[in-house]
Amino acid sequence: MKIGLDMMGGDYAPLETVKGVRQYLDAEKNPADLVLFGDESIIRDLLNNEQTASEHIQIIHAPEVVGMHEHPTKALKEKQQSSIAVGFTYLAKGKIDAFISAGNTGAMMVGALYSIKAIEGVSRPTIGTYLPRENGTLGLLLDAGINADCKPENLVQFAILGSLFVQHLWNVASPKVGLLNIGEEEGKGNLLTQATYPLLKSNALLNFVGNVEGRDIFTEKADVVVCEGFTGNVILKMAESIHDMTSRRHIHDEYFDRFDFEQYGGVPVLGVAKPVIIGHGISHGPSFKNMISLAQHMIEKDLLGKIKASFNISISNA
Amino acid sequence: MKIGLDMMGGDYAPLETVKGVRQYLDAEKNPADLVLFGDESIIRDLLNNEQTASEHIQIIHAPEVVGMHEHPTKALKEKQQSSIAVGFTYLAKGKIDAFISAGNTGAMMVGALYSIKAIEGVSRPTIGTYLPRENGTLGLLLDAGINADCKPENLVQFAILGSLFVQHLWNVASPKVGLLNIGEEEGKGNLLTQATYPLLKSNALLNFVGNVEGRDIFTEKADVVVCEGFTGNVILKMAESIHDMTSRRHIHDEYFDRFDFEQYGGVPVLGVAKPVIIGHGISHGPSFKNMISLAQHMIEKDLLGKIKASFNISISNA
Repeated sequence: MKIGLDMMGGDYAPLETVKGVRQYLDAEKNPADLVLFGDESIIRDLLNNEQTASEHIQIIHAPEVVGMHEHPTKALKEKQQSSIAVGFTYLAKGKIDAFISAGNTGAMMVGALYSIKAIEGVSRPTIGTYLPRENGTLGLLLDAGINADCKPENLVQFAILGSLFVQHLWNVASPKVGLLNIGEEEGKGNLLTQATYPLLKSNALLNFVGNVEGRDIFTEKADVVVCEGFTGNVILKMAESIHDMTSRRHIHDEYFDRFDFEQYGGVPVLGVAKPVIIGHGISHGPSFKNMISLAQHMIEKDLLGKIKASFNISISNA
Repeated sequence: MKIGLDMMGGDYAPLETVKGVRQYLDAEKNPADLVLFGDESIIRDLLNNEQTASEHIQIIHAPEVVGMHEHPTKALKEKQQSSIAVGFTYLAKGKIDAFISAGNTGAMMVGALYSIKAIEGVSRPTIGTYLPRENGTLGLLLDAGINADCKPENLVQFAILGSLFVQHLWNVASPKVGLLNIGEEEGKGNLLTQATYPLLKSNALLNFVGNVEGRDIFTEKADVVVCEGFTGNVILKMAESIHDMTSRRHIHDEYFDRFDFEQYGGVPVLGVAKPVIIGHGISHGPSFKNMISLAQHMIEKDLLGKIKASFNISISNA
């Protein structure tokens, strides 16, 4: 198993990516082989400084860097020797089994959608956001901003993708799926949610529990919450701001500390044909370690195989 | 000046509505005349118990009550002697100058839209939600759930209505208007916000400051935040759940205490031809007192006259 990591992506790269690599190798009994993309001499120096020599590490020289605010398609086209571009080339060719970056999110999405492509039957790949819950577990809300305008069918696919992720990565036998809405009963909502409700209800792949409202987002009412990416992105950024406010106000609380989204590492791009994980720009060592572990688990559990099988079933039943 | 109050609306009515009346009369040097709608003998007994005799009180007997979960149009049609139905009849006939209820929100909206009607030029009246900010002031977000699907023109009208409210009721000279969006720059967003941005930017009645994101909602970046009612309602209920969580976790903080939305009383229905205020179902005495004061200020500042004048200008310029 080979996991590719963009060493140059993120506000604190490459120092923190190197720290993440070391923390992963220290913690993992049977680590995956790591393929590190970035400026070889810089990475080698940092690895030496961090005393991280390992037979599990391979460095692929990629001297260019896509900046955090560069135009995604333009940057990828012009910087073919960038760590993101080279990483996706390796992933597309099967030389690595997963690719991780905390760099330019747009460039990561372009790479995922155009170098790797969507799984057959998935019309809109998605990324979600984790939802901390008071019982210590996480929920998953998707879409978190990639798909600002959606059709009912897109939300159904987000529900299937999210359910498979939660089932196989978090070991929840039959994840409860909720439709984010502005009322409890069937028939409530806007045109999109009114049209989506019956599709979710009748889908045999899903454990649909009905509508969930804004007040239910951080509860166990649903394990997977689906919405279009506009509302999802507002929720994500509002949730991040809750943590900013509690920190600023010196409120120390076990639960609200879990609104610090950096700790979760990154989120997978669900619906593309290979494992791709996008990290938060402000990621530090532990986040990179968590992302590498997540990639390993996605590969070990064959999440992609399970998604492909589900969409194969969905298509043949359609 | 006569302010009408539904004595039977809200989870703790009529005891808490009576307490609100007493608190208002105790606090106000020049109180408005209050017209109380509900079961006369019950109200009279409670007024006696609370030792609230006043020449400013008039009781209008309305023996029926619209329940919190009744179907709005059906209930108003069948219960013409209900406190809400009689209250709107009085408001429509000019026998009172404002009407307040913490009862069935749907019935209040139906009453406002059909008994009172929208101001000429306003295509969609709206209700908002208050946004507590760390500097001690409030912002206003609208729409908070009445208009789940919106057109760009609706959002522009929400911005005008919200600006006039904030300017005249909160004495903010030139309220900053923000468009809730999922990116900072013009051109970002979903189809609705992309189409709305240039309309807000070019509207001479507005001090438009651009896009605001989920992280900006509780900041001073904008005094008036506009969005369609789907996202607005999710935000409102999510904000209420923040207070539920901080309370449950015994977090005592001056700022987070202001997420207890009950304290604000109620929100006006903006865009209808007379002052109508809808309270939270869980309202207690102080909320009713605040709503009566809000109605008084709306009348004193002639907010409705100012809204009508603005839409007159808007129409003649269109």
